[in-house]
Amino acid sequence: MEVLEAIQTRRSVRKYEKREINDEIVKKLLSAAMSAPSAANQQPWEFIVIKDRDMLDAIPAFSPFAKMAAHATLGILICGDTRNLIAPGFWVQDCSAATQNILIAAHALGLGAVWTGVYPMDLMDGRVTGFVKHCQLPEGVVPLAFVVLGYPAETPSKQNRFNPYKIHANVW
Amino acid sequence: MEVLEAIQTRRSVRKYEKREINDEIVKKLLSAAMSAPSAANQQPWEFIVIKDRDMLDAIPAFSPFAKMAAHATLGILICGDTRNLIAPGFWVQDCSAATQNILIAAHALGLGAVWTGVYPMDLMDGRVTGFVKHCQLPEGVVPLAFVVLGYPAETPSKQNRFNPYKIHANVW
Repeated sequence: MEVLEAIQTRRSVRKYEKREINDEIVKKLLSAAMSAPSAANQQPWEFIVIKDRDMLDAIPAFSPFAKMAAHATLGILICGDTRNLIAPGFWVQDCSAATQNILIAAHALGLGAVWTGVYPMDLMDGRVTGFVKHCQLPEGVVPLAFVVLGYPAETPSKQNRFNPYKIHANVW
Repeated sequence: MEVLEAIQTRRSVRKYEKREINDEIVKKLLSAAMSAPSAANQQPWEFIVIKDRDMLDAIPAFSPFAKMAAHATLGILICGDTRNLIAPGFWVQDCSAATQNILIAAHALGLGAVWTGVYPMDLMDGRVTGFVKHCQLPEGVVPLAFVVLGYPAETPSKQNRFNPYKIHANVW
């Protein structure tokens, strides 16, 4: 798939076939993720690849916007390892770039995916703590985003979000 | 360019030809940016397209890692409008996804680009305040990242950042 087309036709996909995604494809997704830029090239990302049926089924209980995990065969938890960072203020941005690469790569590979937010929602509903316990994350490894993936069983319509009012020349 | 190749061969480019980037291409970059997903589809991004020579030349004085701006013909300041957000905790992630889309689209279009970090570096060196004043941003509009772009005058070598030790099955 051509790059600009892939970026522009990517939509959040929340319904999937029961078909599993093979390891070779998962590796491509993670290789795309790790190709993201990061501040001082610190590469703070870590990835928990969740395929275990019981684990996927249990996620909606503590992450209310990830209900589709119970009907998916794959989820990837993108975490930031905040221990020993070179540029501590930037791990969220670094890991977000890696997450976006996963979404674009997934779309190009014929998969559907959705980015469900985790960090910093803990105070409200315990999402961060939920994933920390569920995936046995060590202290200092923070779950940022949970991407749910599958072969798409829905085709969201194209959407043009281009808005010229969001563009400013030189100054606001 | 094919998507996975584009994602994997993209590198930070910091040296550019003097040639200008035309408005049609800038529009493609910004259209890619605005195609990013965002929490609750809040689309918090705003873009300051900086082509003014004096403005570009003045940026390194307050943003030390953006020295290449003085030798570039284009910079895009990606900002988050934090006024009236639906999901306030997520604007950094939303705008980071938009920024990453710009980098991939630029590479696919034959441009070189580099993401220079802005937010949250204000306490250390005044980067945030510097861009706020320079681009006359209203209160609540926060400069997140400054991308410098141009036709590449250097070709950074390919780099494979794939690291299997960053992948965990189901639990850490």
